[in-house]
Amino acid sequence: MDGKVTVAVDALGGDNAPEVVLEGVADALAADPDLSVILCGPEEAVSPFAAAHERCRAQATTERIEMAEHPAKAVRRKRDSSIVVGCRLVKEGAAQGFYSAGSTGAVLAAGTLVMGRIKGVSRPALCTVVPSPVSPCVMCDVGANADCKPEYLVQFAHMAALYAERVLGAERPRVGLLNIGEEEEKGSSFALAAYELLKEQVPGFAGNAEGRDIMQGGFDVVVTDGFTGNVALKTLEGTGKVLFDQMKRIMTASPVTMVGALALKGGMRELREKVDPDTYGGAPLLGVRGACIVGHGSASARAIRNGVLVAARVAREDISGMIEQKVSRHPKQR
Amino acid sequence: MDGKVTVAVDALGGDNAPEVVLEGVADALAADPDLSVILCGPEEAVSPFAAAHERCRAQATTERIEMAEHPAKAVRRKRDSSIVVGCRLVKEGAAQGFYSAGSTGAVLAAGTLVMGRIKGVSRPALCTVVPSPVSPCVMCDVGANADCKPEYLVQFAHMAALYAERVLGAERPRVGLLNIGEEEEKGSSFALAAYELLKEQVPGFAGNAEGRDIMQGGFDVVVTDGFTGNVALKTLEGTGKVLFDQMKRIMTASPVTMVGALALKGGMRELREKVDPDTYGGAPLLGVRGACIVGHGSASARAIRNGVLVAARVAREDISGMIEQKVSRHPKQR
Repeated sequence: MDGKVTVAVDALGGDNAPEVVLEGVADALAADPDLSVILCGPEEAVSPFAAAHERCRAQATTERIEMAEHPAKAVRRKRDSSIVVGCRLVKEGAAQGFYSAGSTGAVLAAGTLVMGRIKGVSRPALCTVVPSPVSPCVMCDVGANADCKPEYLVQFAHMAALYAERVLGAERPRVGLLNIGEEEEKGSSFALAAYELLKEQVPGFAGNAEGRDIMQGGFDVVVTDGFTGNVALKTLEGTGKVLFDQMKRIMTASPVTMVGALALKGGMRELREKVDPDTYGGAPLLGVRGACIVGHGSASARAIRNGVLVAARVAREDISGMIEQKVSRHPKQR
Repeated sequence: MDGKVTVAVDALGGDNAPEVVLEGVADALAADPDLSVILCGPEEAVSPFAAAHERCRAQATTERIEMAEHPAKAVRRKRDSSIVVGCRLVKEGAAQGFYSAGSTGAVLAAGTLVMGRIKGVSRPALCTVVPSPVSPCVMCDVGANADCKPEYLVQFAHMAALYAERVLGAERPRVGLLNIGEEEEKGSSFALAAYELLKEQVPGFAGNAEGRDIMQGGFDVVVTDGFTGNVALKTLEGTGKVLFDQMKRIMTASPVTMVGALALKGGMRELREKVDPDTYGGAPLLGVRGACIVGHGSASARAIRNGVLVAARVAREDISGMIEQKVSRHPKQR
């Protein structure tokens, strides 16, 4: 969807900030002529970049939230940090979305505390598009809520289904509950309770999904508590990394294997791209007032570019407004 | 370790029983001259095989537990099923170990109800050796206990560490808690409580392991509740399967890629073998009186062979006896 949109970007987010962030922002601006960016960070980093780029404005900030800080405390204390200021710009309407590859915890806290929760949402949740070569799957929650009540998963399902529909173009998304068996009677007491609620209240609910289904397709959305979701996501990423590393070792083992590998180069590159989390640019925090996208700390310029574009997309599609409507039609359970 | 040992085998376990089971048993008998097998199953399947093979005795059974049956109910009702009879042979001392690729739930139930829990063990737990090409990792629990208390994980750690030490040869196994961050203060309330107990009571405890660490090495043992462990294991298996399928597609895409793939064939075969769950033959149920090994339903003859050999190994190492000693030194918490 088109239309002018402004995204605030944390120039200090990620292991290689600000250089990689600036590179990614430049690419995003070039890719989307209706996008404007407000770059939040130290004066000396953001001002020269803004002066050199159209549709980019600098917002000088004086504080920085470190990765090791306690997220909520840091957000409350460092009111002139790039993360807090970026979220405040959304709150005040100067921007419609925010992107940061900084401390995930701090971005979640600032999104929730500064942008604010959507009325009726019990818990904002972190979604991620799992990069499957078969078909992408939106998993939610992947870490915002380590402790969940079963009823939260109903809202996670509504929010993630909206995201799958509007951002990935899934028609009538199939929603699965991450569980340890396909059958309705399988699972922990938490999963059994969640199953009942999802069956009752989520039209697209298609039953239990097992760990293998995340990657193998079959579900557009998989909901779970933030603890299990985070473990599953990192397990999947770690497994992919180990197997690609091993493949590389095999391919570079000898002159003969290197020649053989040449023939597979195109296909391998394509596969790597399909399973590269950078392709989806970041994880949206759903349930807050505005688009809030969290990038990996190790985000590349490509990931930053895509993350900023995703923030623009989520803002243009007004996912927050749609979540608000949906939630008011399905009032939360006690 | 050597020494005569007898393993009872469920001839009806697995999708391709009894043929594949018989093939696997024949291979196991050929590989281990001090191994005897008692084959449990329908007369017409087990008797001709036992007659044709040395060190194999037939135990005719008349009932069969189906995959869809309620495990505990089926075990209580079908007292002449191959699974119940196999466990009873261990209980009565006719065999020291039992292997089945049948219904996991039924084997867990029969192991616990028929062989019996080791005194002092709160919950028997299912372990698995995660087939990592970097270094194998024993994960526990992977599905016997969907609902856990934090204190169970202390015993899981003791049991799995013994297994890693005695069966995989890990010296002073490094034990990790599956969690959503490396830092001590990260995690769900369950994980935080388990962390405290593990730190206090498990000498080899080395802190939190994240999902990616399961495959990337660094921990010999990873403990978790059976829900999270099962999700993580299936996520890992699913990711591996999808990536191997994609690789195969790339390699067979054209005559050119097929020639290229030839050069990589040896390395790829080696990698596949390293990550093939069949290599480790099955998952031991630890905490019961005797060796009890559960195979995949889709177990190949190679998996069955290796699973029977693992049962023999666990019996010879007297893992159950060692667990009993360990547990009596570390009495369970309230």
